[in-house]
Amino acid sequence: MNGTSSSFDELKARLAEIHYLGQAKALLDWDERTMMPPGGAEARAEQLATLVRVHHEKLASEELGRLIAEVEPFGEELHYDSDEAALIRVAKRDHEKARRVPVELRGAIARASSIAEHAWREARARSDFEHFLPHLERNVYLKLRYAHCFERDDVYDPLLDDYEPGMKTAEVAQVLSDLKEALVPLVAEVSERTATVDDSVLGRRFPVERQREVVRRMLGALPMPSDSWRLDETTHPFQLSMSPTDVRLTTRYEEHGLASIFAGLHEYGHGLYENGVDPALDGTPLAKPTSLGLHESQSRMWENLIGRSVPFWQGFYGLLTEAFPDELDGGGPEDFCRAVNKVQPSLIRIEADELTYDLHILLRFELERELIGGTLEPRDLPAAWNERVRSYLGIEVPDDAHGVLQDVHWADAAFGYFPTYSLGNLIAAQLWEAVRSALPDLDDQIAAGSFEPLREWLRESVHRHGRKFSAAEVVERATGKPIGVEPYLDYLREKYEALYE
Amino acid sequence: MNGTSSSFDELKARLAEIHYLGQAKALLDWDERTMMPPGGAEARAEQLATLVRVHHEKLASEELGRLIAEVEPFGEELHYDSDEAALIRVAKRDHEKARRVPVELRGAIARASSIAEHAWREARARSDFEHFLPHLERNVYLKLRYAHCFERDDVYDPLLDDYEPGMKTAEVAQVLSDLKEALVPLVAEVSERTATVDDSVLGRRFPVERQREVVRRMLGALPMPSDSWRLDETTHPFQLSMSPTDVRLTTRYEEHGLASIFAGLHEYGHGLYENGVDPALDGTPLAKPTSLGLHESQSRMWENLIGRSVPFWQGFYGLLTEAFPDELDGGGPEDFCRAVNKVQPSLIRIEADELTYDLHILLRFELERELIGGTLEPRDLPAAWNERVRSYLGIEVPDDAHGVLQDVHWADAAFGYFPTYSLGNLIAAQLWEAVRSALPDLDDQIAAGSFEPLREWLRESVHRHGRKFSAAEVVERATGKPIGVEPYLDYLREKYEALYE
Repeated sequence: MNGTSSSFDELKARLAEIHYLGQAKALLDWDERTMMPPGGAEARAEQLATLVRVHHEKLASEELGRLIAEVEPFGEELHYDSDEAALIRVAKRDHEKARRVPVELRGAIARASSIAEHAWREARARSDFEHFLPHLERNVYLKLRYAHCFERDDVYDPLLDDYEPGMKTAEVAQVLSDLKEALVPLVAEVSERTATVDDSVLGRRFPVERQREVVRRMLGALPMPSDSWRLDETTHPFQLSMSPTDVRLTTRYEEHGLASIFAGLHEYGHGLYENGVDPALDGTPLAKPTSLGLHESQSRMWENLIGRSVPFWQGFYGLLTEAFPDELDGGGPEDFCRAVNKVQPSLIRIEADELTYDLHILLRFELERELIGGTLEPRDLPAAWNERVRSYLGIEVPDDAHGVLQDVHWADAAFGYFPTYSLGNLIAAQLWEAVRSALPDLDDQIAAGSFEPLREWLRESVHRHGRKFSAAEVVERATGKPIGVEPYLDYLREKYEALYE
Repeated sequence: MNGTSSSFDELKARLAEIHYLGQAKALLDWDERTMMPPGGAEARAEQLATLVRVHHEKLASEELGRLIAEVEPFGEELHYDSDEAALIRVAKRDHEKARRVPVELRGAIARASSIAEHAWREARARSDFEHFLPHLERNVYLKLRYAHCFERDDVYDPLLDDYEPGMKTAEVAQVLSDLKEALVPLVAEVSERTATVDDSVLGRRFPVERQREVVRRMLGALPMPSDSWRLDETTHPFQLSMSPTDVRLTTRYEEHGLASIFAGLHEYGHGLYENGVDPALDGTPLAKPTSLGLHESQSRMWENLIGRSVPFWQGFYGLLTEAFPDELDGGGPEDFCRAVNKVQPSLIRIEADELTYDLHILLRFELERELIGGTLEPRDLPAAWNERVRSYLGIEVPDDAHGVLQDVHWADAAFGYFPTYSLGNLIAAQLWEAVRSALPDLDDQIAAGSFEPLREWLRESVHRHGRKFSAAEVVERATGKPIGVEPYLDYLREKYEALYE
């Protein structure tokens, strides 16, 4: 017993070291995208590669494997729900994945993706795919080598598993195919019904300085302690946390439209999840969100289920009219909601309405499977992209900046990430069904700016668990049923029915 | 030969890893002082302690020692000035220092000083020394244990050596004593002569927003590539570089006075040194400034020898009057210079005139020697501080915020740092003597805003060497003589003579 207990303590100490190295890496990533002068790019790639290598060596070390093996019998005697049992489970999984991957490859991916991200930023600014192409090729090549480190049914499986642990490509393909089947007719029907909705307000000029003020005040009114987060600007909005009480949100301001608000709410949802992890898990590998699907469920919930709802704007429309008395045109929160929910195929994923959004995901999922599978050459990607947008969304892509270059993910070598957005949509709706039945007054609370009961429900049912349970386990515990498509489709049908009759 | 060459390559790879870990740590420090939400403090202390431990373990490792021993004979055959010989020298020195210190102690110092810095910030804001005291006690205790890891003539020697490699406490004590002897009568004489100088302009309110604009435009007009630095705000101004082309400057804005400008110029001087290191040294332990004394020579040069000179304000006074047409009172650059150079004992070191500045250093040096030597208890520090200020500067300290709590250094466990400011003053004046004889038109160039020749001289004579040579070697090579007090005293006498006759 004493032997086990001292092994367990040593295991925890080593895992804490790995955990804090991961947090330090997160700061390097955040800084690279928000603060770093361009001159820092080359050294940053080396700094990141070094931290990733050291992190990887410690995680893959035989010593760690030995300690895990020593405490496993102890873990099996414990209740599945205990922090200790979960710690051993998750540490074993992380270790076993790490030890399959050569440390040089880990470092190479970190270095290449850091450099690629800068090239992408430039390429996107001038819509110059050629400038990005060699970086994309290198990322695809490295991630293919990475996938080959693992046993697999599908070469895409190991990539997906990094973002959605335990999920298989075939399952995702099925979900997206089910969604497509249901969404295509729904898009046709609703977009016809909303064709006459006036959303010209969203094309207007909203001075950036006042957008900043609105986003800051809005997020400040939501329930995350003000000493635990900050908001910055970036090319492609993201959220990264250095710790549960050091959450970094970002958004992007453009002169026209109010996308900054919805991007801000999206990242806020991510941040609130990170902030809600049980402090008892601090310093362990459990002190993080459990999957990107669950993570995106929280961001999409705040962006859409909350942020594009009538009750939300009943609460916040005053803030908007105060900031933009001339830009808005006298409609109320309901009109504004009809405008921001108008269904129409569009070019930019992060600005897409909820009905067409998953078609953006589907085409990315298909294209990245083909890239990784070797049936699509990186240099043919823009043509394939444009063709797919034409086919699924019925629109023409005017240039690569509004097409294949719009997202940071492939620059970041994050193949396998995109499907988690659709999983997130599903999970968000399923959790929403549960929270609505738990909090019958939810709409009134939201309209009154009282978000604490919602936050408490989310924290209790989802956030606090960190990585103790898988996304599937969390959802089943919170909603009483496995992750499925129906609650999401029900939500969409009801929402558009209510908004546009 | 092949064996040596492969050992040398392996040594360089290991040193690069250590180097990039050090850069990552610098980012954590920078972020902690400029960006981090307060909620991040506890985790940041752990992140820093982890990085410092990993860095230390790699630097102190037997493997590294073995590699250094293997390449040493090779290094001895090379020219002393070669990059390779310098690399081996410096790596050996760093390794031998590191292996004397237990890794736990290194981690404990990093953690304690990170936490102490937050406590200090609060304590300073409410002038509450008691709040800071336990952290100070812990820092003194840990740094004493650190000093005891080394053989030494004086317990203060190992602390000083971290900032000014090779310099002994006795030498510093002699320099400061020589300075005191010369400065005390000079202060008396000049402050009498300048008593009637009208510096009321510096007590006026200068709206912070316009100070920001002035500092930004001024630093932007100086010769450092704009893609290689940024400027932020902090409690106690500092400069940290993540790499030579990723320089982070900071300053502090207060409603009254223009100290933000001089702090900005000070940090710019630090940054320009970092920026000027030879890119051929990138990724090695040589790619950093060689000592804090030389570092401070560059900051004090830009702050004072340049930034408080008539030619500088002949060039920049227009910028100032444009920003503050009402706040300034119609005097010209000469009047402004007489105001910003007025000699009068004052409470705050970083705002002190050049004649009284070194007395601030002397009292800190004495007090920290007493703290580390055990003859002064941390709790008695405020009384000792106030007494020493009365004795050396002839003024009363109204509260600890304007006294013992004003500087970040002791919170940061940076005992041994303060004397490098006075060394920096000496070196700055000695280099200035050399640069003036190399560039006879220097005053005209500065007045015309042409700083490139000066930058080139500094880069060529000082910056590019990084850690290849010691501060003493750099100064001797650049000026033809060892570091001494006379050029500094000559500079001061001439300056005040010329300004106030």
